[in-house]
Formats: sequence, structure tokens, C-alpha cells
Amino acid sequence: MDAIDVIRAKRDGGTLTPEQIDWAVDAYTRGAIADEQMAALAMAILLNGMTRPEVARWTEAMIRSGERMDWSSLDRPTTDKHSTGGVGDKITLPLAPLVAACGAAVPQLSGRGLGHTGGTLDKLESIPGWRASLSNAEMLDVLRAAGAVICAAGSGLAPADRKLYALRDVTGTVESIPLIASSIMSKKIAEGTGALVLDVKVGSGAFMKTVENARELAETMVAIGKDHGLRTVALLTAMDRPLGNAVGNAVEVAESVEVLAGGGPSDVVELTLTLAREMLAAAGLSKDPADALKDGSAMDVWRRMITAQGGDPDAPLPTARETHTVTAPSSGVLTRLDAYGVGVAAWRLGAGRARKEDPVSAAAGITCHAKPGDTVKEGQPLLTLHTDDETRLPRALESLDGAYEIGGTPSLHPLLIDRIS
Amino acid sequence: MDAIDVIRAKRDGGTLTPEQIDWAVDAYTRGAIADEQMAALAMAILLNGMTRPEVARWTEAMIRSGERMDWSSLDRPTTDKHSTGGVGDKITLPLAPLVAACGAAVPQLSGRGLGHTGGTLDKLESIPGWRASLSNAEMLDVLRAAGAVICAAGSGLAPADRKLYALRDVTGTVESIPLIASSIMSKKIAEGTGALVLDVKVGSGAFMKTVENARELAETMVAIGKDHGLRTVALLTAMDRPLGNAVGNAVEVAESVEVLAGGGPSDVVELTLTLAREMLAAAGLSKDPADALKDGSAMDVWRRMITAQGGDPDAPLPTARETHTVTAPSSGVLTRLDAYGVGVAAWRLGAGRARKEDPVSAAAGITCHAKPGDTVKEGQPLLTLHTDDETRLPRALESLDGAYEIGGTPSLHPLLIDRIS
Repeated sequence: MDAIDVIRAKRDGGTLTPEQIDWAVDAYTRGAIADEQMAALAMAILLNGMTRPEVARWTEAMIRSGERMDWSSLDRPTTDKHSTGGVGDKITLPLAPLVAACGAAVPQLSGRGLGHTGGTLDKLESIPGWRASLSNAEMLDVLRAAGAVICAAGSGLAPADRKLYALRDVTGTVESIPLIASSIMSKKIAEGTGALVLDVKVGSGAFMKTVENARELAETMVAIGKDHGLRTVALLTAMDRPLGNAVGNAVEVAESVEVLAGGGPSDVVELTLTLAREMLAAAGLSKDPADALKDGSAMDVWRRMITAQGGDPDAPLPTARETHTVTAPSSGVLTRLDAYGVGVAAWRLGAGRARKEDPVSAAAGITCHAKPGDTVKEGQPLLTLHTDDETRLPRALESLDGAYEIGGTPSLHPLLIDRIS
Repeated sequence: MDAIDVIRAKRDGGTLTPEQIDWAVDAYTRGAIADEQMAALAMAILLNGMTRPEVARWTEAMIRSGERMDWSSLDRPTTDKHSTGGVGDKITLPLAPLVAACGAAVPQLSGRGLGHTGGTLDKLESIPGWRASLSNAEMLDVLRAAGAVICAAGSGLAPADRKLYALRDVTGTVESIPLIASSIMSKKIAEGTGALVLDVKVGSGAFMKTVENARELAETMVAIGKDHGLRTVALLTAMDRPLGNAVGNAVEVAESVEVLAGGGPSDVVELTLTLAREMLAAAGLSKDPADALKDGSAMDVWRRMITAQGGDPDAPLPTARETHTVTAPSSGVLTRLDAYGVGVAAWRLGAGRARKEDPVSAAAGITCHAKPGDTVKEGQPLLTLHTDDETRLPRALESLDGAYEIGGTPSLHPLLIDRIS
């Protein structure tokens, strides 16, 4: 087998054979295919696509590049959720303990933010003492103690994907539906969950800007899941405006705790409950998650889970040294609050990172005082910007230019756009 | 400027700005764009194309990455030829001295073979003592002494192209008309010739398999040449069968000397004279090259040129330890002798190299005893295979399977297909 033959086959619009796919993924992981060769192949895949059988095989090859976790020693069914990423998307934080409180085990392997989308691990690290890196044995201990665990994927899990993702990140080959689908599904299948609910975000703040693309990604991932005996459901949900009111790290943890305490913004509560019902149904459980929010049992799981990972759930969260308030320039109905603009602003305030090696600021972020549909008065606070470094304010404000509109024609997605199973 | 932005622009079907092109070529040469990033960009260019202004700018940026040679101190006009490569294409060998004998100076920077196509330098190195590598000062000395020089390009000439070509070679991104055109033209323009004739090969043994593709490449190169004030003409010529009877290294030198002596196969003579007339006309000279073949003046230049580069024009050429003859399986008209099949066979016999670092065998090659259109008798020799290593014979014979046909329907290109100026 030869790398150039594989590249040429895809370049010329052909279908890769199962043997070519197995060899390419394995050879790349071993270093027998060079980065520049895989970059050319990734670009050819991005531009010429892959068939469903090709994506399935590519995913399988990435799973087989590493270990596959096993939770069969637990006495509860496992179920998990994956979001394709957005702005203000803290749903994993209240969701994992909520679903665990309803009787499932939730082994959540999460990621860090890159670009304008936040990362679950970055958010949780704003809790003093909390650790993202656990061994497999520690993961099992936390799952047994709390029913849910949220941590970083170990290096043994789908190493082919780890290497390929880093390459795609620097070669303009991230935005390929077959490559996104196989990347997500290889990690989730290797993670060993028994059921999976996918939250595919749609809109300016998401990877998928259109419902059409999001549906294609969702259908591709659901098909891969089924091929691997994983009960998989996908929801298409809105990411044209931020989710909830808080965008950043510590501010999103605080909002998540509000939800677990029975409060919180209505869109975060609705999406959390909807995803919880899907996760429980996929795991064969029927308890109503709304009860677990009301009776405090979800909050109890949260506290156990944070504590089991070294965090102090009662410690005060970091606050920013500087704040700046953006006020409404006129009175009327807020018809638009662009997720991408707000996400980039939070990123520039320090909530996100430009390169993988960069640190993030726990306190940086944005609080939205109004959401699309709300009526605002001229001069009322619209957004509060939080940062530890005031020199970051001008560029953050720049990205908010034109990111909101008062009195325009609303054209928002419904929160829940579609369901694919 | 950012590599990912440039990659994305081309990936998404856009046109690169002059600034993006200048930056990308310069940054890659300096190492500020990584190989994997340029590989992704090259694949995006291959699949999405480049406009004429983009190709012109890309070429210009590659020229400016290195030195530009200057022959203004010579008292003769300079003119050169470039062939896109084929099987049995030894034309440069008789052509350069012939054109010099008619009053022009020919500063030929040539290449080595890779894959099934032969390289002019590999062929000439079968002459004992002959040196391919000359300094710029030595090149000028040979030009002054003989009127023609054939040598390797120095590392100072279009270093961006040198680096990019090596990358394309391993990433399946060779077959892109904009990248082929800019690669050829950047070297020829940096070489400093005043006129240029392009021999664009068409057929199974060439890069361009169809007249349509060859015409596009030729038009692209002629336009680049004109943009740079270089008098440029392109001929489309047949490469569906080998050129001449000899395919290899020493065997092609011998055939070239036959042409210079006034003999040689008719197709080699015809193409040599046609290209010589074009080169002389482009240089503003009117001498008939046929006279210089007849009166021995072209041979005189050849001998001076070989001698000036350390070679002995009277030394016997290497001959192979093993020969094997393929005979005609039936009687009739030979209607097909596939250039690609013969080229691969010669390559496998040792005339070419699999990797840039490999040596070639001077004696390896093939002699064709009949060409398409000839009538053959069952049992008569069709091809003689020459090699120093008899273990290479079986795979060479394999590539000749189905490469010739007796009594079929002929469908050959005319030797001269088209002329583009």
C-alpha cells in the first residue's frame, strides 16, 4: 500500500477501499504516512467527500487505533451526550449530574475550547481544586461515587483522532462533515457509553451554519452509532444566539449551579431537560428529570462529582478585575444577539485560547442582560464584559459591532429545530 | 497573514489575492508555512484551480524566491526548449547543439527522470566523464566555448519551486495544470533565456493524457511567458508511442549522435528540426537547421559541448550485461506500441528511479525494432530489453503485456498535433 495511491484515489473522486482506509489510519498513527501526506488526503476528503461506508470504516479504524473503555462492571446503564460546540453551551455541567440523579451512569469525556467556542473542561477548571485529568481507575471511582464524571480523554483513546485533529486544526481541514463525524463518534464509541445523544448546533456560533449541513452531520453520526450498536439520537438545536445569559468560564459554572438549584435561564433549563429525557430514554430509564431538579438530587450529584474530582463546590468562583457594560442604544425589542459575535468577544476577553498551549482566564466572559425577544429601554445594560486585562476590551467591543439589533425583523431558529434517530 | 486563511480561501473556491500568493510562496520557502499546510493548499489548488492572474503571480513569486540568471554578456541571442517529459524523448541532446550551430546560445537547465519518464541529465551521464553540475561561471564558459550547455539547475534558482516540487511529489499533487505551469515557467524565466519553445507531450506516456488538458497547460504557460516578456511558443506533440527507437540512457545518447550524424529515426529528426526552427525564429535567426545537420556543424558543437563538460565524445557507451528480445506474436501491421507501457518497462529495467536518491543504470533500456505503422512478421524481433540485472526482467515484461497490438485499428496522434503562440 502506498500513501500517494490512497491520496490519488480520493483526489480523483474515487471511493477508498476498506483496506486503504485501515492502512491509512494505522500508517498515519504509526508515522509511516507523513503529516504532509495526511494533510493532502484530508483536503481531498474535505473537497470530494466520503460515502457512508467510507466514514463508518474510517471511524472504526480510528477506534481500533487505541483502547476501548468498558463500564460493564457498573450496575447502571451508561448514557452520554455530545455537543458540537457553541457559545454559552454549558449544558453538560447541569446535565451529567441530572441524568445520574435519575439512575444512569454518565462517563463524559469532554474537551477544551478552541476559537470562539468554549470548552467544558475550561469552564469546570474555574472551580478551585477541580481536576480534569483522571486515570481510568479514578474515572470508575468517581462514576461509582457520584454516578457521573466529566474529565479529559486519556491519550490511549483514539490516538489516530488526536493526531489527525491536531493536523486538521492547522491545515484548514476542520470543516469536513465526514471528518467531524468520524472524529466525534470514534471518541464516543471508544469511551464505551451504551447510549448517546448528540446535540448538533446550528447557526452563526456553531460549526454548522445551516440546518442542511447540520442535518447531514447528524444523520452521518447517527448512522455510525447504529453501525456500532450504540443507541444514538441527534437533536438539531439553535446556536444563532448564545445559550443562556452567561458566556465564559466561571460565569457559566455559576449559571449551571443556578439551573441545578431549580432556577436559571429558561432556554438552558429547557435544553437540559430535553437532552436529559433523551439520554434516559436511550438508556431505558423513565424517571422524569424535572423532579430531580426540584428535589435537589441533581445538585447532590453535582456536589459529589465536583468533590470527587478535587473541587470545592462551595468555594467562591473567580471574578474579573475589570467589567464594562454595553447599554442599549435605543428602545424596542431586541431582535438579534449574534452568537458568533458574542463568542468572539468572550474569546478576546480571555475566556478562550488562540493556540492549544495558551491558558484561559477563568473570570473572563460576558453576561447577557437581555435575550432576543426581550423588550429593552435605551440606556439599559445589554451586556457586561468581564476581563482581567483591560487592554483586551477594545478588540472585544469591536467584535460586538453589529452583533445585536433592536427593532429589526426577528429571524431566529426555534431552540429545538429537529430530532434525528 | 495566516496560512489557514490562505488555505481556506482556496479550499472554498475563492481567488487568492496577490498579497496572499506572495506571502504563501515566501513563507513556505522560509519555513514559516509548514509542509502539511502547503500540502493542503496544493491539494486545494489541484481540485479548485487557479485563475490566469493567480498562476502568473504564483510564478512571479517563485522566480523572486531565488536568483535570475543573466546572459546579456553573450554576443548571441539566447533561446531554449522545455519538454513536459515523455518516453524516448532525447530531443534536447541533438537539438541544443543544432540550434547553437545555427547562431543562437542555448542555456539548457535540465532535470532528472522520475517515474516512467526519462531525464536528460541521466542520459548524458552515461557518457564517461560528463558532469551535470556546473557553477554559473562554468555554465557561461561552456556557452562561450560551444554555444550550448546542458546542465543541472543550481540551488539558487527558484528555490520555492524546488521545495514545492519535492512536496508535490509525495503528496499526490503533481497533476495540477497551474502548479505544473508555474513550476516549469518559474525555472525557465529565472534561467534567463530570451525565447522559449515548449514541447507539450500528449498521450499515455505523458503527464497530459488528452489534447484538451495539454492545450490548457500550453496556453497557461504561453500566457505566463508573454507576461514576463519572454517570446514563448508551444507545440503539442504525440506521446502515445515512444519517440524514436531507443528508450533509456546510453541507448538514447547513441540515437541522438546518429541524428547529429545525419541519420536517426525519422520522427526524432522531424521533431528536432521543427523545434529548432521554432527556437531560431523566436530568437530572430533564420538559418535552416537542416543544413547544420548535413554539414556536420551541429555535431561539432555537440563534441565541443560534451568535452567542455568533462565528457569524452569518443568513449564507448556502456552496454548492458543482459538482453532479452520480445518477438512479434503474429504477422501484420503494428498498430499500437504504448508509450506508457514501454516507459514503465525501461524504468523497471533500471533506466529510471523510484525515489530521487536512487541511482540509475546507464545501460538499461529498450530498443524498439518496429514502430506503429510498420509491417512485422511473426517471430521477428519487436523489442530488445537491456539490463544489468536479470531479476528485473519479469516485472519489465509484465508492463509490456498488452502494450503492443498487431492488426488492430490504428488511432495515433500525428507527431505534431497543434501549435500555440
